[in-house]
Amino acid sequence: MQTLLNTVKDIFDAEQFVFEPHELYDPIEYTLRLGGKRIRPVMLLAANQLFGGDAAQAKDAALGIETFHNFTLLHDDLMDKSPLRRGKPTVYRKWNENTAILSGDTMFAMAWRYFLRQPHTRLQEILNCFNETAIEVCEGQQYDMNFEQRDNVSIAEYMEMIRLKTAVLLAGALKIGALYACAPNEDIEHLYQFGIALGLAFQLQDDLLDAFGDVAVFGKQTGQDIRDNKKTYLYLRALEKGSAQEVQELRDIFASTPENSDAKVARVLEIYRHLGIKEEVENTVEMEFSKAQRSLDAIAVGENKKRPLQELMEALLGRKK
Amino acid sequence: MQTLLNTVKDIFDAEQFVFEPHELYDPIEYTLRLGGKRIRPVMLLAANQLFGGDAAQAKDAALGIETFHNFTLLHDDLMDKSPLRRGKPTVYRKWNENTAILSGDTMFAMAWRYFLRQPHTRLQEILNCFNETAIEVCEGQQYDMNFEQRDNVSIAEYMEMIRLKTAVLLAGALKIGALYACAPNEDIEHLYQFGIALGLAFQLQDDLLDAFGDVAVFGKQTGQDIRDNKKTYLYLRALEKGSAQEVQELRDIFASTPENSDAKVARVLEIYRHLGIKEEVENTVEMEFSKAQRSLDAIAVGENKKRPLQELMEALLGRKK
Repeated sequence: MQTLLNTVKDIFDAEQFVFEPHELYDPIEYTLRLGGKRIRPVMLLAANQLFGGDAAQAKDAALGIETFHNFTLLHDDLMDKSPLRRGKPTVYRKWNENTAILSGDTMFAMAWRYFLRQPHTRLQEILNCFNETAIEVCEGQQYDMNFEQRDNVSIAEYMEMIRLKTAVLLAGALKIGALYACAPNEDIEHLYQFGIALGLAFQLQDDLLDAFGDVAVFGKQTGQDIRDNKKTYLYLRALEKGSAQEVQELRDIFASTPENSDAKVARVLEIYRHLGIKEEVENTVEMEFSKAQRSLDAIAVGENKKRPLQELMEALLGRKK
Repeated sequence: MQTLLNTVKDIFDAEQFVFEPHELYDPIEYTLRLGGKRIRPVMLLAANQLFGGDAAQAKDAALGIETFHNFTLLHDDLMDKSPLRRGKPTVYRKWNENTAILSGDTMFAMAWRYFLRQPHTRLQEILNCFNETAIEVCEGQQYDMNFEQRDNVSIAEYMEMIRLKTAVLLAGALKIGALYACAPNEDIEHLYQFGIALGLAFQLQDDLLDAFGDVAVFGKQTGQDIRDNKKTYLYLRALEKGSAQEVQELRDIFASTPENSDAKVARVLEIYRHLGIKEEVENTVEMEFSKAQRSLDAIAVGENKKRPLQELMEALLGRKK
């Protein structure tokens, strides 16, 4: 796994991102050099390797998928008015809104440039997968924005939203890597389902850690979703399970933004605990984790070749077997 | 030519643009149904026809190029804070800024979906042409925004900006249409140069008509560029040709936005006339028109087959031979 992380780092280090006009490309270089986990290109190369693919062929797709992902972050940060990304000012803050829009658009096109750099017998399938994934990610972001305006979002709707917003890009990256290696379609499908389950588990666990995580492990303040009145899986499930009185209290609390939010966080966590939300979400994460494991197991490739993906899954979900 | 306009209308009428979530797709349908001249898909199909191509093969690319063009308009209108497009409220006004960003992004991806719908032996070339054109259009928009902040833009820089912002998309549409018909590369190059010259001539003539046009023919109030302090070819050329005193006056006028702008417009036009700017721009338009004509003439195809493109050129530049 460490080898793959280094490979991806080398790919990005070797690439030039600044062209003329520099006002357009400086924010792109800034964004793509911030790093982050680069989990999608790592997944793509791991899937490629799983089927004995040639990393030199898949490397441009790895660049493409990460460039696309960063384009969505750039526009999401503008839409959500987020001040920070990976501890640094977001592009719309460091430059301005128009720069965030146009440099983002250009990054989407640059992602295509990377995908189009090399010929491949399955290129049309690869590009279709990339593009349909891109459309789904946009749809997921729209559902996310819609849900902010609604107070009757079901768990099923929430799961579909995070599937589109988060899981399909992980799954798409895996599928693309496998397509580059001309893997059998049946195995590609298993790999795709592995990615979906992994993405869902990862997102739900993120909701969980934000509420109940160990600050030292989580790496940031807990309870932030509650402070931000974010409608997570936990909140929506509590609305489904709570008494009429608890539901009303939760709605009231999530409509408020008190100066000192610690009491707010404490009270919401108390309700979550009382309703057994924590255990329930843990069970759902475990279920998705098992689905991911079964999908990985089903791939008709020697077990030792699956080790990097197994490690990636465990690292992403913060667990050791 | 009328046949091609109808063909393009039929293609758009037959296409579905609304999917779920409708909050994402309603603005897309609104934009794509507004119509407009749809000159780029018409050009694409005309180029395809010129080389005996199959319109059924090229029709999805026609959809793709117009969807891309409308995506750029959607984001440009937001960046420029334009209230109206084709006489109707712009998307960011009718909905909001986030909708304009995300529905725009989705339109870019939809454009790709259309391009990817059908296989083609030259698909990678077609997609490369589309994507490199898209990147150039973004670069053109960035130069346009840069120039608003600068007061020393040269004519050469201005021409390069409108080449990127306007001409390459016309030229790209023509090239793509020709690629679908598997035209010889030499003819594709002539056609591309035809598109560049046509695009430049069209944009310069637009600058000219805005200042000196007949309101009845132009269809909107003249002098708007001057009221908006827009740095057109005319203004930049006047800065190059004017006396120190005239240059200072122009700069002062363009730094002001008086309540009653008629006097402002009148004075600027007086300076333009005194410096012979009108004739000079007319000559430049004529030169680009001739270049376009020569490029069209150079294509190794029977003259009668060129008639639709000839007519399109003349219609676009508002002249009859």
